[in-house]
Amino acid sequence: MKIAVLGASGHIGSSVVDALRDRHEVVAVTRSSAPGLDATDAAAVTAFFESIGELDAVVAAFGSVAFKPLAELTADDYRDALANKALAQISVAQEAVRALRDGGSITLTSGILAREAIATGAAASAANGAIESYVIGAAAELPRGIRINAVSPTVLLEATGYHSAFPGFKPVPAADVALAYVKSIEGVQTGRIFAV
Amino acid sequence: MKIAVLGASGHIGSSVVDALRDRHEVVAVTRSSAPGLDATDAAAVTAFFESIGELDAVVAAFGSVAFKPLAELTADDYRDALANKALAQISVAQEAVRALRDGGSITLTSGILAREAIATGAAASAANGAIESYVIGAAAELPRGIRINAVSPTVLLEATGYHSAFPGFKPVPAADVALAYVKSIEGVQTGRIFAV
Repeated sequence: MKIAVLGASGHIGSSVVDALRDRHEVVAVTRSSAPGLDATDAAAVTAFFESIGELDAVVAAFGSVAFKPLAELTADDYRDALANKALAQISVAQEAVRALRDGGSITLTSGILAREAIATGAAASAANGAIESYVIGAAAELPRGIRINAVSPTVLLEATGYHSAFPGFKPVPAADVALAYVKSIEGVQTGRIFAV
Repeated sequence: MKIAVLGASGHIGSSVVDALRDRHEVVAVTRSSAPGLDATDAAAVTAFFESIGELDAVVAAFGSVAFKPLAELTADDYRDALANKALAQISVAQEAVRALRDGGSITLTSGILAREAIATGAAASAANGAIESYVIGAAAELPRGIRINAVSPTVLLEATGYHSAFPGFKPVPAADVALAYVKSIEGVQTGRIFAV
């Protein structure tokens, strides 16, 4: 398969590339790679998928959100969280269809805060919830056997700076999270949220 | 209790007003009421809750989204859906805290498309998912015993124009949906999604 991994420089994205590159042709995409992509720019997303050629799978593993106490989160923080994580990944999913071969797949990245609460996590919760429900809604309407899933990871073992914000959450290695992307890409399921 | 119902002219909002007004002081708010509010304007939301006086409960029952086939939904459609429904309701929740008495409540409105798919529903799904996960995240951080829940209705009996878009979904009367708001306001639960 030819697979584009967007957000390839992050803990998750780089582990996904590692999990796939022995068996597939992987295009690792970051803001500064060639080809590169800033997925918050909808026109750039369209242009990217018009020029990348045919693909069998697209992974979106990016999106930063503000972590602040609830009372300090501003309207702009929520707007940015939804724009930089949810809308950017949705834009990738919508535009990826034009590049995907029949039976191809799209895998987005949400997170455990869609279903669980931590202090400072409300904006992340909103963004993750938007992605997960979008996947459920979109899966039923994708053409040509194209599938879509989301991987919803808990805090990463490698993201040591976040461990204290997730008390009692067992950190998982990014390599374990990467397996869920393999399941999404090489498996048959669609419209699923793979919690890791 | 003194209760502000935002979106009071809709099927749901007007039924919520009907369900509450015999036992409570209800302020029915629309874009054109006095006081009125356009909740997509974050500064207006702040000003509204600074001037409304003390409240015991706030209901947000508004938010329009585009219903289009997946391939026709644009980046702007998703942005508007999240802005007009999710961000506007989140803005209300964030700013309502300043007006709510100890133990007060906030009740937002999502929808069944957070968890189920219909043709043309992907933008609605994203907006509903953002609201539901926000409620889960925010509930744990609200101060002074303030609670927050979401009511997640299926298609309304009164919304006859939508019935054919929801095949096999049993329409529910808005009066039944309004009961879930009563449960949220007069009950004790928080961080819950009440599916109706």
